[in-house]
Amino acid sequence: MDTKRIVDFKAGDEIQSFFILRAMNIKTSSNNKKYLDLTLADKTGEINAKLWNIENGEDSTYKTGQLVKVRGTVTLWQNSLQFKITKMRLTEDEDNVDVVDYVPAAPISAEDMYEEVMGFVNKIEETDVKNIVSKIYEMYKEPLMTAPAAKSNHHAVRSGLLYHMLRMLRSAEVLCGVYPNLNADLVYAGVLLHDIEKINEMNADDLGIVSEYTFDGQMLGHIIMGVKTIERVALEVEAKHETAMLLQHMVLTHHYEPEYGSPKKPMIPEAEMLHYLDMIDARMYDMNRVYDQMEVGEFSEPVFVLDRRRLYKSSLHENL
Amino acid sequence: MDTKRIVDFKAGDEIQSFFILRAMNIKTSSNNKKYLDLTLADKTGEINAKLWNIENGEDSTYKTGQLVKVRGTVTLWQNSLQFKITKMRLTEDEDNVDVVDYVPAAPISAEDMYEEVMGFVNKIEETDVKNIVSKIYEMYKEPLMTAPAAKSNHHAVRSGLLYHMLRMLRSAEVLCGVYPNLNADLVYAGVLLHDIEKINEMNADDLGIVSEYTFDGQMLGHIIMGVKTIERVALEVEAKHETAMLLQHMVLTHHYEPEYGSPKKPMIPEAEMLHYLDMIDARMYDMNRVYDQMEVGEFSEPVFVLDRRRLYKSSLHENL
Amino acid sequence: MDTKRIVDFKAGDEIQSFFILRAMNIKTSSNNKKYLDLTLADKTGEINAKLWNIENGEDSTYKTGQLVKVRGTVTLWQNSLQFKITKMRLTEDEDNVDVVDYVPAAPISAEDMYEEVMGFVNKIEETDVKNIVSKIYEMYKEPLMTAPAAKSNHHAVRSGLLYHMLRMLRSAEVLCGVYPNLNADLVYAGVLLHDIEKINEMNADDLGIVSEYTFDGQMLGHIIMGVKTIERVALEVEAKHETAMLLQHMVLTHHYEPEYGSPKKPMIPEAEMLHYLDMIDARMYDMNRVYDQMEVGEFSEPVFVLDRRRLYKSSLHENL
Amino acid sequence: MDTKRIVDFKAGDEIQSFFILRAMNIKTSSNNKKYLDLTLADKTGEINAKLWNIENGEDSTYKTGQLVKVRGTVTLWQNSLQFKITKMRLTEDEDNVDVVDYVPAAPISAEDMYEEVMGFVNKIEETDVKNIVSKIYEMYKEPLMTAPAAKSNHHAVRSGLLYHMLRMLRSAEVLCGVYPNLNADLVYAGVLLHDIEKINEMNADDLGIVSEYTFDGQMLGHIIMGVKTIERVALEVEAKHETAMLLQHMVLTHHYEPEYGSPKKPMIPEAEMLHYLDMIDARMYDMNRVYDQMEVGEFSEPVFVLDRRRLYKSSLHENL
Amino acid sequence: MDTKRIVDFKAGDEIQSFFILRAMNIKTSSNNKKYLDLTLADKTGEINAKLWNIENGEDSTYKTGQLVKVRGTVTLWQNSLQFKITKMRLTEDEDNVDVVDYVPAAPISAEDMYEEVMGFVNKIEETDVKNIVSKIYEMYKEPLMTAPAAKSNHHAVRSGLLYHMLRMLRSAEVLCGVYPNLNADLVYAGVLLHDIEKINEMNADDLGIVSEYTFDGQMLGHIIMGVKTIERVALEVEAKHETAMLLQHMVLTHHYEPEYGSPKKPMIPEAEMLHYLDMIDARMYDMNRVYDQMEVGEFSEPVFVLDRRRLYKSSLHENL
Amino acid sequence: MDTKRIVDFKAGDEIQSFFILRAMNIKTSSNNKKYLDLTLADKTGEINAKLWNIENGEDSTYKTGQLVKVRGTVTLWQNSLQFKITKMRLTEDEDNVDVVDYVPAAPISAEDMYEEVMGFVNKIEETDVKNIVSKIYEMYKEPLMTAPAAKSNHHAVRSGLLYHMLRMLRSAEVLCGVYPNLNADLVYAGVLLHDIEKINEMNADDLGIVSEYTFDGQMLGHIIMGVKTIERVALEVEAKHETAMLLQHMVLTHHYEPEYGSPKKPMIPEAEMLHYLDMIDARMYDMNRVYDQMEVGEFSEPVFVLDRRRLYKSSLHENL
Repeated sequence: MDTKRIVDFKAGDEIQSFFILRAMNIKTSSNNKKYLDLTLADKTGEINAKLWNIENGEDSTYKTGQLVKVRGTVTLWQNSLQFKITKMRLTEDEDNVDVVDYVPAAPISAEDMYEEVMGFVNKIEETDVKNIVSKIYEMYKEPLMTAPAAKSNHHAVRSGLLYHMLRMLRSAEVLCGVYPNLNADLVYAGVLLHDIEKINEMNADDLGIVSEYTFDGQMLGHIIMGVKTIERVALEVEAKHETAMLLQHMVLTHHYEPEYGSPKKPMIPEAEMLHYLDMIDARMYDMNRVYDQMEVGEFSEPVFVLDRRRLYKSSLHENL
Repeated sequence: MDTKRIVDFKAGDEIQSFFILRAMNIKTSSNNKKYLDLTLADKTGEINAKLWNIENGEDSTYKTGQLVKVRGTVTLWQNSLQFKITKMRLTEDEDNVDVVDYVPAAPISAEDMYEEVMGFVNKIEETDVKNIVSKIYEMYKEPLMTAPAAKSNHHAVRSGLLYHMLRMLRSAEVLCGVYPNLNADLVYAGVLLHDIEKINEMNADDLGIVSEYTFDGQMLGHIIMGVKTIERVALEVEAKHETAMLLQHMVLTHHYEPEYGSPKKPMIPEAEMLHYLDMIDARMYDMNRVYDQMEVGEFSEPVFVLDRRRLYKSSLHENL
Repeated sequence: MDTKRIVDFKAGDEIQSFFILRAMNIKTSSNNKKYLDLTLADKTGEINAKLWNIENGEDSTYKTGQLVKVRGTVTLWQNSLQFKITKMRLTEDEDNVDVVDYVPAAPISAEDMYEEVMGFVNKIEETDVKNIVSKIYEMYKEPLMTAPAAKSNHHAVRSGLLYHMLRMLRSAEVLCGVYPNLNADLVYAGVLLHDIEKINEMNADDLGIVSEYTFDGQMLGHIIMGVKTIERVALEVEAKHETAMLLQHMVLTHHYEPEYGSPKKPMIPEAEMLHYLDMIDARMYDMNRVYDQMEVGEFSEPVFVLDRRRLYKSSLHENL
Repeated sequence: MDTKRIVDFKAGDEIQSFFILRAMNIKTSSNNKKYLDLTLADKTGEINAKLWNIENGEDSTYKTGQLVKVRGTVTLWQNSLQFKITKMRLTEDEDNVDVVDYVPAAPISAEDMYEEVMGFVNKIEETDVKNIVSKIYEMYKEPLMTAPAAKSNHHAVRSGLLYHMLRMLRSAEVLCGVYPNLNADLVYAGVLLHDIEKINEMNADDLGIVSEYTFDGQMLGHIIMGVKTIERVALEVEAKHETAMLLQHMVLTHHYEPEYGSPKKPMIPEAEMLHYLDMIDARMYDMNRVYDQMEVGEFSEPVFVLDRRRLYKSSLHENL
Repeated sequence: MDTKRIVDFKAGDEIQSFFILRAMNIKTSSNNKKYLDLTLADKTGEINAKLWNIENGEDSTYKTGQLVKVRGTVTLWQNSLQFKITKMRLTEDEDNVDVVDYVPAAPISAEDMYEEVMGFVNKIEETDVKNIVSKIYEMYKEPLMTAPAAKSNHHAVRSGLLYHMLRMLRSAEVLCGVYPNLNADLVYAGVLLHDIEKINEMNADDLGIVSEYTFDGQMLGHIIMGVKTIERVALEVEAKHETAMLLQHMVLTHHYEPEYGSPKKPMIPEAEMLHYLDMIDARMYDMNRVYDQMEVGEFSEPVFVLDRRRLYKSSLHENL
Repeated sequence: MDTKRIVDFKAGDEIQSFFILRAMNIKTSSNNKKYLDLTLADKTGEINAKLWNIENGEDSTYKTGQLVKVRGTVTLWQNSLQFKITKMRLTEDEDNVDVVDYVPAAPISAEDMYEEVMGFVNKIEETDVKNIVSKIYEMYKEPLMTAPAAKSNHHAVRSGLLYHMLRMLRSAEVLCGVYPNLNADLVYAGVLLHDIEKINEMNADDLGIVSEYTFDGQMLGHIIMGVKTIERVALEVEAKHETAMLLQHMVLTHHYEPEYGSPKKPMIPEAEMLHYLDMIDARMYDMNRVYDQMEVGEFSEPVFVLDRRRLYKSSLHENL
């Protein structure tokens, strides 16, 4: 018996460990018996699992999002690994495990990130800009602690949104040093607001797992939702019209290309910079995630989110 | 002396007539004399005009938008017609002319169109949809009477916006008959709201002449501005969230392609229909405008707004 | 035993009913026995079916397109429903069933549609236009009664082509009222001829089921075939050259974009209108078909034929 | 006084020579005198010319297409050369000049080219292919002798169409040797028919000068016109359906890309080869035309018809 | 027992024959026994094969690239043919078979092709061009004898690169006759060098089978690698700078479109011609390969490498 | 008399000042007198100038690139300012002016920039990377001091290339802090080498003014030239193959999109970052250049190099 991480599973492994129940369906096998078709997950990945020949009512014991203790065998089925469960139960207090340790999450604690991010809010000098951002961050503090930045792809982990903004803010600060003609207030505010409505665009539970896009998310998307939120809050804090519009313009243009959702292009340098800060952070995240699973001297498979490019990990990347 | 319309001017014509002063610049000629470089306009077109050797202060007599009485000669300068003014003065009461007769305008009176359009507002049955539309039409009644639908191109005439919506509404009504599965309330509301923020996207005077795009128009554009207006009004009239979102979605998607300003595509049939109603009316308007200046049996020059297509006017178009 | 429609099948259902045999292959199982791999269909859909362990010659009993009576069980195989046949026979007179009731068809009878469509032919006033259209409709009357408008996608049902044209004609009539500058003769003729060669572009049986594209369909396509047919008939009825060319031009341009098969763009307003009539009818058809399978408050899966958009069915669509 | 070719004109040259009158407009100068605004041409190029202060009726002496004897001076006007005419008259018999020597033409005589091209017609073995091509070449013999292959761009010279086809046929013959799997009959026929309707797509006089596109040319274009001609002739010679369709398919697909006018792509290797033969000949022609005006070691200006590429003429191109 | 070629296999065939082992994996079946999952190949194709229940160590008997003698049965598994091996052994001397006869190869022997190709090298007159090409061909002679021109697609067979260049050279020679303004030295050299670095872009064994792209191939690609090789060799043979650059330019531009790997477009006619020679040969090869498996009167399935076009094989293609 | 900067010229100004002679042509006026058509420039811009009625030989007094003292009047000609020279002479020692003060240049001295840039070279730790970069910077030190980064557009000023790289290096350093997984050696080397061959792609004089692209620049471009230079130097310093290839790959991919000249996309994160560093610096430069000529509260004209976007300068940009 073994407590391997899912990413390390090999056919033939006998496993006993804790997992999150990510998805669950009751199905009927060819011999007409009911079984559970499950997705189990830990911090490192997911695997399809089968619990054969369930008793009546056994399926109602479990709900997705719960932590379960499972015993079974890893098998190979049509070139994919599958987990054949022999025993499964819900975790109990004495198991002394916390569900949060079983979901992928940002590498810094949400509390630390939040504090550092709020530090940037406080660096904003222009009153209206600061009022708008502060008000929105008050409103959204709670969901912000766990929200991921995506359903899949970059920063699709617990607190991924905070992590995405934090790294962008750090970059923003130093680049405002290199390019002193930029208004740092606008750059910080742009970063802090650009994706803020991802919180309402996707239904994420407090494990940072997105089940689906929301109604508003489908009908308008987080960019338009963000513009509306700034408008509403700007009216509440009685911000100058020009200031409110600059922030809305930055959110509206940050995807840059119409086909990626921005109907206008940046008309101020801070909006241009926001776009590149966003791209850099997303790409660095995605590339590092691929590197994490590669050996030195190796090419990766084509990576979907990087336009099907392969990456190469050189000997100069050995100790990074 | 002649009172020809500008569209009929030929080199050599001696003209005495009334025109609108569309643009005016003071310039200095090669022999160092001041002169006025003007654009004169009537219902049918515009012409560049020169008033040579002006007296000191004579330029301050005139303001763009005024109606002037002018005498002079049409000449040819580098393949373009030009109007050489020999005499010019402001109109006076006894001239008995009205500036409105000298600007291009929709072929139906604004009052008649407004009444017919409001008839459609009243046909809307669903309370929230009706409340939102009614409220916005109350707010915008005044500018709506004269607003054009564009700076140049289709419906860029006085009350052109009303005319554009009126024809779309007439089409909407009959097509809802052919396609009874459409919710007519949504289609009417979509038409009534889709371009409403063109009123605030462009600075137009009450002759329907656009001088420039507004700050908000440049930073966000009438589509995003329209979404925001619906949001605000929907909150005021306490409309159901779903209803408010459907109307915003229709405005957001009506340009259909991202590169034309719609970051989302229609997800309800009424939004799809709105797009085609809009396209049909714009294209019919532009094509008829070209036909008006063509003879039967002739091909037009390439028309910029029709993707540089030429049109052909056949003998079957003779009496239309 | 149950007579459910295919669209309502669930794993475990015991079914006894009539179906059309849409496709049939003889295969050999892993234990070296022959079996029939079938596609069964009714008005609502299709399902893969297996008839195991057939006798020698049993396969020659059946032909695709026939109506069969079948008994069996619905099973789940790799996430798809499959029908395991226990008994199958050809229908007999005493079954008192008509194959036409088992294929998807337009919601109006072909006869009624044909009569209404011919009413539009008779509304055409210009002699040459009328002669060309009348002649072609005489020639194609028979196949027209059953022809679908596509192999899959919009109007891919029995008499779908008639239904497509009929709704376009109804729209054409009312829009010619809104836009009186259009020549209605040309618009009607354009609608009546634009897809007429779909009859010869696809091999459809008299159930309206397309087996494949024809040789001419593959080498030229229905647009070019339509141009040629008009040319030939125009010569036969001695139509004026200009008239014949206008009709050919309308057919040639109705797909509008080169990448959709139109090498020229519309040069007359009637051709422009024809394109939009075509688009509207196709999109309304496809969207309603998706709506038919959706609940209020729900988003659909991405719809291939609508550029992978999802649709949303709102509470305002409840009783439509 | 000088008889320089137009390509060699320099500001200040005094010229007396013969030219073709390519275009003529009567205009009125700023001092209200009538003058002729002309385009003069010879084999090497064109130049704008002015004949000032004409007498009443003098303009009716001349018609475009005529050969005139002209005396005057080359001047520079806004960076372009212009020809100021001091004396002009129509040519007379005793001038002993032939208009044909003053238009750009293919480098081989039309008669020689025609004979060689007909040799290829005779090489066709398959009866139906040969009958179709022969019949069309009989019909079009006369215009073919002078027709250019374009209004401007490649082979826009007298007999340019014959020259274009001739070089393609020579290439076709040798490439059918390298690729013996090609059916040479189809390749020859494809070349012989692909552009044949350029004859009716453009109005060219017998000097090979195109004044404008024809009605049919604008409404359908030479590709669709070619398909129709083959169809009609194939019916007349009672060719097999398959054969007639293959030839139509080749003409239809020879521009290869939809945006260049081909709604289908080649489905037989001979159509694929036809496309490349066409491209090669057009590009070699255009590139050589640019090279003719370049010195060794030089880059050309961007060439419009070559997608604005510059060409380089190397020392290896010195004696070609 | 039968010695059929793979392309002729049908379910149920009992086969005993020689094959190349193209790929091999050891897997574990659902009943926990080890088995070999193999790809067998001959000149005509490949098939998946299973050797069940292998002994310990049996897998180490075999290596990919070896020729094996196999007995077994062809079965149908999920619509694909599969080969169930009952007996397998390595070939021995007395089998008297040569691995080269079991891989797809160019239809002419490498030796004959090499000689003919070197004949073209010797036809080059300009000293520097000749020196550069000769030197490179000396360096690469050995790998050139077997190198394929691709991993899959056109000329992906043993000695396919030589065959590709040979046919291009034959075409080049005759087209230089038709277009005498071309510098034949440059055209020959362009053909001889354009793909030469495919030798180092892909790891191919001496059967011409590519296992993967090389490091350099992935990081730069054969076009850039070719430019570098010419540069290095040109310095070694002390070629004139202009000549070295012309050859590099030809290699750099031969894919023509940026999205296919050429950052510049041809600036000399020889580079333009090189592109078309390359396209023609690739397309003729691919089309003939499809034709080889088609019957007259038939349409192919969509062919991936031909942009998913279908081909048609007409009665005029019967004896080619 | 006035010594205004060119950017401040207005029609009617009488000017006496020093300018650089940027371009010079001898032309002949309509009254057949020779005159000089000149372009004069200072740090702030350029203006067309005419020196009328020159003496024989006067034109040979001047050469482009020289500093001249000029007196004359600013006039308006067809909406552009023009400078009518009344007196002009070469500068003399006693004028005590330095040509370098009359060309646009980077805002930091070349010497200071060079020192800071070399500091980054010295920060590189990996031996091969450092050797390659050091060697190239030794070779190119002299031209590097004055080279612009472009012919027009971003950094097209004296020492603009150094300035471009310097700002990128400063950004690179801080971003390597935010993204510690990046190999800083590679990022620095990528910045230092990415545009280095712009030195040989364009012919720039030591005022940093580009007259034209070089032969190599036209045939290959600075990206391919850079790859070749790294290859050559890497062989000289006997660098590891992998290292040499990584640097070549970074240069090759830094334009990112094929249509901008990069045939491959980045396969290592450092190449990805290099692209964004390049984009950011170019855009910040171009935007600031536009801002420099704008007032607060104003929209600019469409800016060609920013895809014809307008910029807006807000009150938050007032003191930057």
